[in-house]
Amino acid sequence: MPELRNDGPVFILDLGQGENRFSPDWITEVNAHLDTVAGRPGPAALITTGTGKFFSNGLDLDWLGAHPQEVQPFIGRVQELLARVLSLPIPTVAAVNGHAFGAGAMLALAHDYRIMRADRGYFCLPEVDLGMPFTPGMAALIQAKLTPAAAIASMTTGRRFGGPEARDLGLVDDIADLDRLIASADALVRPLAGKDRKTLGRIKATMFASPLAALREGRLTAPAN
Amino acid sequence: MPELRNDGPVFILDLGQGENRFSPDWITEVNAHLDTVAGRPGPAALITTGTGKFFSNGLDLDWLGAHPQEVQPFIGRVQELLARVLSLPIPTVAAVNGHAFGAGAMLALAHDYRIMRADRGYFCLPEVDLGMPFTPGMAALIQAKLTPAAAIASMTTGRRFGGPEARDLGLVDDIADLDRLIASADALVRPLAGKDRKTLGRIKATMFASPLAALREGRLTAPAN
Amino acid sequence: MPELRNDGPVFILDLGQGENRFSPDWITEVNAHLDTVAGRPGPAALITTGTGKFFSNGLDLDWLGAHPQEVQPFIGRVQELLARVLSLPIPTVAAVNGHAFGAGAMLALAHDYRIMRADRGYFCLPEVDLGMPFTPGMAALIQAKLTPAAAIASMTTGRRFGGPEARDLGLVDDIADLDRLIASADALVRPLAGKDRKTLGRIKATMFASPLAALREGRLTAPAN
Repeated sequence: MPELRNDGPVFILDLGQGENRFSPDWITEVNAHLDTVAGRPGPAALITTGTGKFFSNGLDLDWLGAHPQEVQPFIGRVQELLARVLSLPIPTVAAVNGHAFGAGAMLALAHDYRIMRADRGYFCLPEVDLGMPFTPGMAALIQAKLTPAAAIASMTTGRRFGGPEARDLGLVDDIADLDRLIASADALVRPLAGKDRKTLGRIKATMFASPLAALREGRLTAPAN
Repeated sequence: MPELRNDGPVFILDLGQGENRFSPDWITEVNAHLDTVAGRPGPAALITTGTGKFFSNGLDLDWLGAHPQEVQPFIGRVQELLARVLSLPIPTVAAVNGHAFGAGAMLALAHDYRIMRADRGYFCLPEVDLGMPFTPGMAALIQAKLTPAAAIASMTTGRRFGGPEARDLGLVDDIADLDRLIASADALVRPLAGKDRKTLGRIKATMFASPLAALREGRLTAPAN
Repeated sequence: MPELRNDGPVFILDLGQGENRFSPDWITEVNAHLDTVAGRPGPAALITTGTGKFFSNGLDLDWLGAHPQEVQPFIGRVQELLARVLSLPIPTVAAVNGHAFGAGAMLALAHDYRIMRADRGYFCLPEVDLGMPFTPGMAALIQAKLTPAAAIASMTTGRRFGGPEARDLGLVDDIADLDRLIASADALVRPLAGKDRKTLGRIKATMFASPLAALREGRLTAPAN
């Protein structure tokens, strides 16, 4: 399960040592750790990463399959978490240590920055191959962070992007060797840890007002469908 | 007039051997070919191209001049075609073989990708020089596919961009020699031909909900004007 | 105070020889010069620059501190000026000769293009460090001109970008040595000076309908706050 540690003002949220899929319990744990960060006064920044082969492999499809009547509220909780990270009032960076698929890739995109392991792991939005169109909120989040060309290439193809490809397309900001991944992420956000949270929170809320509204509205499909 | 052929799952829509301007009859032909593609079950992808010097030289201004009272419904039909291509539930690529001007350039932009002939032909939005401001729908389409800098450079100058310039600015995704143009376009979409149409259609409808609504609303000018 | 001169169709608006901060009087002067440009028929283009170390250092915080009850109407005037430049019906370029901070950076962004001095001066949005979140209109203006990655990097960090960095991130379109700055800006807009003003004005009004509405609405904070 997710764990939180800190090195001075820099909090490191480790999403786990497995596939780190979004299940109700896993979401509750992640939110609890974000509560801890929110409750700690003073300078703070967040690095989100995983241990092993996965950053996060996306939604827990086994759980979803076993709870078909809970899809809507579950997606609502996923979107609320994405909205929370998107508007977190501290600097945030995803240190993508391995596979970031589906909601895992969206979670990475919700951070201010993304540094990806150079030699292994894929960034992938497989929704088109799973018969699961993006919700309006998820699409708005992804498109708020990518150029139009990168959005088309990632959202309509199901293609898996290795680190260098992901960087060239702008899916991630930079790549690093695994043993330098956390240090690279740290170098990006530690100098920003002292920003006033209230101001930074308002800035992100204003910049991303539209995707935040779409995520929090929680609709599963676009009105026209 | 436009012709449709196919090579396995890849449909090639040839816009014609002339200037391939948007007239009522030409639009009807193009739509009929898109109906054929839509009616064929199974894997499919679309390459749109032209034969000779032109991809498409834009609106048929002669026809428009001769039918001044039909401007509004005609523009409505043009925009409906652009919206249809923008949301086509199969992978699409414009193989820009020659000049793509005005609505012809917009038609290319409506596709998922654009490959442009490297050595000849221009991509150009001449509206500013024709005294024809973009409709809200057309502007929304163009801006949904370009970075802000590329939108300014192409929409406010009437500048003609050759292949390499168009690629550097992101107006097109890549360039190719003419004898490799269709092959390059094919290589891009053939691997994607098997995507589930319903899912892909919903993804595009969600991603481009805003420009699709503006195109289908069909207004000629922005409300503030 | 600001001065206006012209070299044929190219008007050069010099924002001043000091810090060129936005005060009520300074805004009135700038608007008067824009009135002159608007009232001169025939081909026209605008280069906006400053003399000395500053392009513009942003809002006149001394004036604001001395007139706390006038903040809302003052910000309204600032935003109206930004909206006016954003939609000016002639080609515009900011020749960023030195520091462009806060509203000064926004004024540069409101122009069609930005050329920045290569070796000195910073482009900076310090709002996060001043406890002054962007208004919805200001955020919409900035985001309408930048890629998502550039918006995050500039709006949430307070970071100072020198010329080469600003160009690499797309905050400015190009850089030039100081003695070539005006010539570079001139080369960009002089060939465009003959564009029909009514058409160009409508094109910009349509392209930027959303940020223009947000700027003119003049709210200080987002509705959700």
